Amino acid sequence: MAASSLPDVPLALQDPDYRNAVVDLLGAVSYGEISAFERLAEDAKLAPTLQDKVAIATMASAQIGKVGALHGRLRELGADPFAAMAPFRGAIDLFHEHTHPADWFEGLIKAYVGDGLADDFYREIAAYLDPSTRDLVVASLEDTGHAAFVVDRVRAGIVADHRLGGRRALWGRRLMGEALIQAQRVAAERDALAALLAGGVDRPGLDLAAIGRMFARLTERHAERMAELGLDS
Amino acid sequence: MAASSLPDVPLALQDPDYRNAVVDLLGAVSYGEISAFERLAEDAKLAPTLQDKVAIATMASAQIGKVGALHGRLRELGADPFAAMAPFRGAIDLFHEHTHPADWFEGLIKAYVGDGLADDFYREIAAYLDPSTRDLVVASLEDTGHAAFVVDRVRAGIVADHRLGGRRALWGRRLMGEALIQAQRVAAERDALAALLAGGVDRPGLDLAAIGRMFARLTERHAERMAELGLDS
Repeated sequence: MAASSLPDVPLALQDPDYRNAVVDLLGAVSYGEISAFERLAEDAKLAPTLQDKVAIATMASAQIGKVGALHGRLRELGADPFAAMAPFRGAIDLFHEHTHPADWFEGLIKAYVGDGLADDFYREIAAYLDPSTRDLVVASLEDTGHAAFVVDRVRAGIVADHRLGGRRALWGRRLMGEALIQAQRVAAERDALAALLAGGVDRPGLDLAAIGRMFARLTERHAERMAELGLDS
Repeated sequence: MAASSLPDVPLALQDPDYRNAVVDLLGAVSYGEISAFERLAEDAKLAPTLQDKVAIATMASAQIGKVGALHGRLRELGADPFAAMAPFRGAIDLFHEHTHPADWFEGLIKAYVGDGLADDFYREIAAYLDPSTRDLVVASLEDTGHAAFVVDRVRAGIVADHRLGGRRALWGRRLMGEALIQAQRVAAERDALAALLAGGVDRPGLDLAAIGRMFARLTERHAERMAELGLDS
């Protein structure tokens, strides 16, 4: 009666193309968390008060705290977590190089808007995953207390100096633009991830129209986040 | 039958001098954890590999993860955690300013030897605390995975370039010297902490001979840690 499938490995993951896509995705999310840690730890130095510093440092720690479970799953899949992350270091590092915050507020906006965008994107992809991988990815994206703190601080900063609103709005657009450039680069280079979105024999995929709708949703949520901060998008 | 004592507050903490000493101690330990986070996050940038970076970032996160419980207890005692930390920022910041690691190995040695020294010192003080505060302090000092990783890396580094042993040994002595200078400064400035060590009506204290023995124990354990790393002390 028993199928010849490996125990404890979901059926979907026995398809090598699908497995490769999952290894890619978990590698990308893991390295994203590590670089989020680095960036937030760097931003913590710009914090105007010790309270702000502790808040940002706690966010940074929450990011790195998620890496363990992602790496654990990669090992279960027989992949080396560091090899899995390697293909995404270039794009993620470049994103950060090109969006280096000039001050405390730019750092906060980047934490909120940049991470929000990445999380939305991974959540969109998660819809095409087997349930156990999907749960793991979604858990790794749960808001770790960014939202309330950052929104509060940025809004207060704009009230204090409303001339800065225009410059901050431009910053939000730059974050969006850079993220799209790097995401496109990753999609072009990683066949397995692209194939995941295109679907498989037993998995629905995205056609061009569906990809267009996905980007429309991402842009809309980006605009909502900017509005939340009191900024134009 | 019931005493007029506040519920849930150990009897010892109803003595204002003792309470002030505990607030001081928890403030000092909290700020120590926060600055350990900052330093480790900074060291993570020097990591030669992504594996090393993740290991150090995870250590940094473990440090900040302990601040929540310490701050929670400070609030239970009716103290503002940030006010409680304030008196110790000068000494702890100066310690770090005067012991800025020149490279990855100096950072590792500092993480191991410097934190080990601080932990030993707080553990010595913990012996003079009421049981619930003692448990909290000791829990906040538990090794968070530093030991094995750092010892392994530093020993490997010395094998790779044994000429560096002498310079590393000097670095260890500098860490010890700076720690003593700053600890002495804190003891001189904070009467409540000094009084804690001197004892109270119902608490044993340390006389000069006992303080001497305490420093002998701290020095001995420092030497053991240096030896563990393959370095003279």
